[in-house]
Amino acid sequence: MIRIAVCAPSAPITRQDAERVVALAARDYPQIELHVHPQCFASEGHFAGSDELRLAALLECANDPAFDAVWFARGGYGAGRIAEEAITRMDKCADAKMWLGFSDAGYLLGGLYRARIGRPVHAPMLACVRREGGEDAVRRVFDFLSGDEAGVEPSDDGHPRVAFNLMTLAMLCGTPLMPGLARHVVMVEEVSEHLYAVDRLFFHLSAHLGGVAGLRLGRVSDVPDNDRKFGANAEEIARYWCERHAIAFLGAADIGHDSANTLVPFG
Amino acid sequence: MIRIAVCAPSAPITRQDAERVVALAARDYPQIELHVHPQCFASEGHFAGSDELRLAALLECANDPAFDAVWFARGGYGAGRIAEEAITRMDKCADAKMWLGFSDAGYLLGGLYRARIGRPVHAPMLACVRREGGEDAVRRVFDFLSGDEAGVEPSDDGHPRVAFNLMTLAMLCGTPLMPGLARHVVMVEEVSEHLYAVDRLFFHLSAHLGGVAGLRLGRVSDVPDNDRKFGANAEEIARYWCERHAIAFLGAADIGHDSANTLVPFG
Repeated sequence: MIRIAVCAPSAPITRQDAERVVALAARDYPQIELHVHPQCFASEGHFAGSDELRLAALLECANDPAFDAVWFARGGYGAGRIAEEAITRMDKCADAKMWLGFSDAGYLLGGLYRARIGRPVHAPMLACVRREGGEDAVRRVFDFLSGDEAGVEPSDDGHPRVAFNLMTLAMLCGTPLMPGLARHVVMVEEVSEHLYAVDRLFFHLSAHLGGVAGLRLGRVSDVPDNDRKFGANAEEIARYWCERHAIAFLGAADIGHDSANTLVPFG
Repeated sequence: MIRIAVCAPSAPITRQDAERVVALAARDYPQIELHVHPQCFASEGHFAGSDELRLAALLECANDPAFDAVWFARGGYGAGRIAEEAITRMDKCADAKMWLGFSDAGYLLGGLYRARIGRPVHAPMLACVRREGGEDAVRRVFDFLSGDEAGVEPSDDGHPRVAFNLMTLAMLCGTPLMPGLARHVVMVEEVSEHLYAVDRLFFHLSAHLGGVAGLRLGRVSDVPDNDRKFGANAEEIARYWCERHAIAFLGAADIGHDSANTLVPFG
């Protein structure tokens, strides 16, 4: 039996989405037991409950030896506010776990990877079920946890790998949550940002990636309309900043804020 | 005679705005000679001309001994792409100059301050003339360059000071343009960002401000509507992150993306 705890360190999910994913697991994955923490439905301002509530739920899931994996329910914003204290208070039970999520969950994945606690994995989240084709994204996670690696991002070249939302990784730079990325292939994806903001994030991020094996660009989707064209597309932007900082640009990564988003086990 | 060169390292301005400010100077400031570089009206994609064109115009203004000050025409985005090379190629003539601007011009102000080239000053820009009350903002700059310090931000407590757009300073952190800010009072302002994004920027920035004398918060204006309330206002956000990183929160700063924006000479 594979026991997965679901908590929401960022924004809340709906009961309907949770029920749909629980039903999918019950129907098609008898080897999987899904425990959705009630904190996932809490709401306070922007977040799935106060910092204290989200931290407590995360620590309950992390430090409970009954769980094999902690699956983050949804992104949004908020994991970065509690990640440092959560990691400080994790015990030995946390070491044996997989940690799955992406987008705003990257603050936790990055901090956990830096602290060498368990195995962080860039992966679709529970709330992804509501996308078109979202059940496939959820199945990719269940398949992976069941030992089927078909849903893993295919560009593996032998280097250790990490994957992040571009904004999240840019914000991690220089903070106590930022992992060392020397010799890593770094993949980034972005959603709902103007191209000038993508360029600005690369200005910042590329100054912090000395020693990486290279960069791969995931999908940059839902770029808002601007009053004028930026003048370069996302790949051209990535290539430009990689060139300026002598970072190898390795091509595309099959990740993004969509149902096709694949898994990237860190390391 | 005070000779001011205007160039646009970020986005272009209109001829109408330039003519209005040139006329204002001619009428009311006989001691001021304003030279608006034609590059200010160039347009290529997002920018006031290509990186090469903006860089060349900036260097012309910087290295011309005839000018006492370089006034950045407008923010937007783009100064960070050329700032590092511009600073490398500035000669002795640049040392004697004032550099005035804010918002995206902060990439240059920060880099110039780090390189100890002349005197960077957070100040209204030419394009501010089109705001309601914008002529007053422009006059504040001309008065300051004429020796009248009435338009300087009033909270001076004897510490060296800097002022930045929050996003700009967050993006500067850890890059070759970031000045040392130990013992400085750091002022930040923001415009058109969601409060969750403001919180995220403080998460990042506050991890980089070790050793500052304290932080002052300028105006955080034109916050877009979100699908849910954030749960804290901008001052509460600033206080929270200052508290987490043991940074003294010193109160309000009289700066912002508006006509009341005051001047902050760096240092």
